[in-house]
Amino acid sequence: MSRGVLAVISGFSGAGKGTLMKRLTRDYDNYALSVSMTTRAPREGERDGIEYFFVDTETFKERIQQGRMLEYACYCGNYYGTPKDYVQEQLKAGRNVILEIEIQGALQIRKLMPDCLLLFVTPPSAAQLKSRLEGRGTESPEVIAKRLARAVEESEGIEAYDYIVINDDLEECVKQIHSMVQNARYTPARQETLIKEIRGELNGFSKGAE
Amino acid sequence: MSRGVLAVISGFSGAGKGTLMKRLTRDYDNYALSVSMTTRAPREGERDGIEYFFVDTETFKERIQQGRMLEYACYCGNYYGTPKDYVQEQLKAGRNVILEIEIQGALQIRKLMPDCLLLFVTPPSAAQLKSRLEGRGTESPEVIAKRLARAVEESEGIEAYDYIVINDDLEECVKQIHSMVQNARYTPARQETLIKEIRGELNGFSKGAE
Repeated sequence: MSRGVLAVISGFSGAGKGTLMKRLTRDYDNYALSVSMTTRAPREGERDGIEYFFVDTETFKERIQQGRMLEYACYCGNYYGTPKDYVQEQLKAGRNVILEIEIQGALQIRKLMPDCLLLFVTPPSAAQLKSRLEGRGTESPEVIAKRLARAVEESEGIEAYDYIVINDDLEECVKQIHSMVQNARYTPARQETLIKEIRGELNGFSKGAE
Repeated sequence: MSRGVLAVISGFSGAGKGTLMKRLTRDYDNYALSVSMTTRAPREGERDGIEYFFVDTETFKERIQQGRMLEYACYCGNYYGTPKDYVQEQLKAGRNVILEIEIQGALQIRKLMPDCLLLFVTPPSAAQLKSRLEGRGTESPEVIAKRLARAVEESEGIEAYDYIVINDDLEECVKQIHSMVQNARYTPARQETLIKEIRGELNGFSKGAE
């Protein structure tokens, strides 16, 4: 069983990240969504281990101390982060894990797991991004300004990503992401066992020929 | 028209590189094979610009001086190399260029064209590589020793490659290489124009909002 790939998905608001993730888990059978951990209280209908792992602040801080968070951040007094154990279990079972996160979190993860795949999803053109940010023309200038500020933030660090995924046609885009994830299983780091075996075989030969 | 991808293919003898390259050019319409340049005399049936570009030593050395060779080497008193102009023309026309070469040449090319794709083709297991190297059991120990020495050489530097391509099922393998090449069009370096446009758009917005 070859180890799964951790695919970290970032991108502009409204680029369709959520839909893409749903489709990947629906269309292919070897994907798992990463479940975040948080210290905020569950909202109505939210289930532990599904929407989030809900823990108290002490537990969360312990996890950080133990190096068991892939990344974390604190918003409005609550901690949010990605538990390492869950991701590792899924990868070990051969499943690819998809994790949606903004760039800063993605770069934290890349440091801890260099063989993760960083994908940045964008609308196909600046014009389309613009019209999505503007919305239906009914939003206040403040709302648009807020979205704009967020988009600028979202694009900082884009160069560190493996691929820019252009979400033009949804079907094509899902297939493309899947092929990027599948291909990531064939990097030299991931084929280390095969390379070692082959080198061992060649060395054995070598000794036989001496 | 987006610029094509230069796919550099290396791998073990008998891994099926030649067949894979033929199939890529046959099954998909946007591939061109790189044509090498050489100073050796054409053999019967070899056509200039098809099997090789045939030139004299003076011309070849001039090309090197002018920085017009992507890589070159001298074997048995003859120069062999990859002319940059031809590759660049094809890439500019949107075609992917496939180039078969050993690792040393591949690493020379990576230095000059960092956005090329390096693919290393291997049989699916050490056992299969072994049986391919041994041949049908009719070869002399000298022939086998020569193949072995070459395989050891062929595997040095494999870690610098983008992907290890396991040639188990030919059809799957052709599709996989094609998807690796197509995906290579979506690295941030290759989507620089889109990224610039989007940033320009966001900055324009920014000024409007001030």
